[in-house]
Amino acid sequence: MAQLRIPGPTPLPPEVLQSQTKQMINHRGSEYHAMMTDVTNKIKYVYQTKNDLFILTGSGTGGMEAAIVNMLSPGDQVLSVSIGIFGDRFASIAQAFGAKIIPCKFEMGKAADPDVVRKALVDNPEVKAVLITHNETSTGVTNDLAALSKVVKSFGKLLIVDCISSMSSINCPVDEWQIDVAISGSQKGWMAPPGLTFVSVSQKAWDAYSKAKMPRFYWDFGQAKKYLAKEETPWTPAVSVIYALQVGLNMLVKEGLENIFARHERVGKATREGAKALGLKLVADEKYASNTVTSIWLPAGIEYKALSKTMREDYQITITGGQGALDGKIFRIGHLGWVDVKDIDECMVALKGALTKLGYKN
Amino acid sequence: MAQLRIPGPTPLPPEVLQSQTKQMINHRGSEYHAMMTDVTNKIKYVYQTKNDLFILTGSGTGGMEAAIVNMLSPGDQVLSVSIGIFGDRFASIAQAFGAKIIPCKFEMGKAADPDVVRKALVDNPEVKAVLITHNETSTGVTNDLAALSKVVKSFGKLLIVDCISSMSSINCPVDEWQIDVAISGSQKGWMAPPGLTFVSVSQKAWDAYSKAKMPRFYWDFGQAKKYLAKEETPWTPAVSVIYALQVGLNMLVKEGLENIFARHERVGKATREGAKALGLKLVADEKYASNTVTSIWLPAGIEYKALSKTMREDYQITITGGQGALDGKIFRIGHLGWVDVKDIDECMVALKGALTKLGYKN
Repeated sequence: MAQLRIPGPTPLPPEVLQSQTKQMINHRGSEYHAMMTDVTNKIKYVYQTKNDLFILTGSGTGGMEAAIVNMLSPGDQVLSVSIGIFGDRFASIAQAFGAKIIPCKFEMGKAADPDVVRKALVDNPEVKAVLITHNETSTGVTNDLAALSKVVKSFGKLLIVDCISSMSSINCPVDEWQIDVAISGSQKGWMAPPGLTFVSVSQKAWDAYSKAKMPRFYWDFGQAKKYLAKEETPWTPAVSVIYALQVGLNMLVKEGLENIFARHERVGKATREGAKALGLKLVADEKYASNTVTSIWLPAGIEYKALSKTMREDYQITITGGQGALDGKIFRIGHLGWVDVKDIDECMVALKGALTKLGYKN
Repeated sequence: MAQLRIPGPTPLPPEVLQSQTKQMINHRGSEYHAMMTDVTNKIKYVYQTKNDLFILTGSGTGGMEAAIVNMLSPGDQVLSVSIGIFGDRFASIAQAFGAKIIPCKFEMGKAADPDVVRKALVDNPEVKAVLITHNETSTGVTNDLAALSKVVKSFGKLLIVDCISSMSSINCPVDEWQIDVAISGSQKGWMAPPGLTFVSVSQKAWDAYSKAKMPRFYWDFGQAKKYLAKEETPWTPAVSVIYALQVGLNMLVKEGLENIFARHERVGKATREGAKALGLKLVADEKYASNTVTSIWLPAGIEYKALSKTMREDYQITITGGQGALDGKIFRIGHLGWVDVKDIDECMVALKGALTKLGYKN
């Protein structure tokens, strides 16, 4: 069967696809109200949080912008802990709205070192918030967020985390790890189409909100809270995507968080072991390798375009390439959401066949 | 058959609903590229424009925010031509981002008077941009945008128009009327679910963009243009909504603009005549009555909640109420998108039955 092996959008189960054929309803009516509350509560289950949780219509990048503009004022110092493209993007958003960025960058493929973050916070006492990517999609690295959170919280700082490609696939207990704003996106492990982003907002985040002066309207958390009390959103939401999300959430709840995380561990491991068995080298430090996406160095003599074309045409499997400085140097395999080890096994058979066709010798 | 008679989300044809069962695809791959270009070109046909046209993931309010932050700088004077809730919202967005609002408000139910707008522009020579709502959903009034544009353009001002609930239902030739930024939303006459907003950008708008200093990232037109050259969007788009939009657009193109506008004229007229035949009074000045939504005063002794409940429970027809100052005073019937006169005839039979049941006597 054709496989979409990219880190989002992810393949959708048939019942999720089918759910979108339901006719439109009034987004200010009782049927919508019940769905909104059900979906919000189930996302909170996955987030492992009692914090407020808002569903906003937009991509994950929109959720990141929402977190920035609701928490900060122009001129605020922000520590940007970045291990790749998406960490850099988070800093760019904050900078675009006038924050002063203190960079804390780590080498591609490595996780953030909590000791280096601690030193940065000692050196920069004025920092108001720390931006961290939980799972860096561009390199396939998962930060040790438990350890990073301990450091950030020992300084009493606001912790804003891009959990877009981890939440619902990798354990990320928002309350236990004291994440003030945690962002995710519907097209990742949630088994829903793209179009929605989720943000959780802690009490400390609400305190920051009350002082934050960056301009905002569409993404305003205060409006989202006011309307959620009426089981609605301030602006018209992506109704058909919520239909799909509800079905995806029911599947997640039925499977249970522990089983979901264990399954992603299995597929992550199967991908890494499969790649290594083919003699390929992984981009990520294996201690921090992501269970939702694996980045692999292209072997000498193999071009990304040829590999991706062969995978697609000979095996109906879609992989993706590197971004930024890694463009043309790596390829990536997504394994989050509706996926199990047999899919990865098929993918690895295809990868071996494609590489062999292109002249690769293990 | 059940009817959703609100001004968006609108009922979707079966083939549009069915299109959403298509599996997810790579939003950076060739299949997506072809769809993106096809959909963009067909939206431009409906917009009657050669300007750039971008599809952004968000609600119509997001498109309004995008127009503001890409065109203006904090401190810029903006003339806000408002005839209702959505006109006021447009001004609120501009104000939230630091624009100085010069209000030019008209009584609810009336259209904007071009002579009043002319005087406001004479009195305020520093105005940089004029914000206008083409079709005001809260009152069911369609402004004479051709006449208003002539005034605005005689002063050489930037013209930014909320065409959310008009475009694809009511004639709105963007190039002929020299609209610099025209905004619409997928859940209106486009016969698609909510989740996407469209913006057209003229050369004059690009000139304004190059000087505009309001902070922006997610909504940045420059990024949208850069990625559209690659047949992509900067951030992950709402793919399943685009599937639906493509089918809706094919239906619009097949019907042809003239026929679409004529059909909306017929349903608009049928709604107004039907309401008047029941002895009801219209909110909108009939000279400017909208062909996509009709606002009707609640007759003495009839409460909105009882009317809406009876319509829903006895006839499976969903209507909507008034917003802001009109809450509890009016009800509204949406008639845009997948609708024809027979739907309105059914709706009027139901309205007569519901009103009679509630004790109304014509």
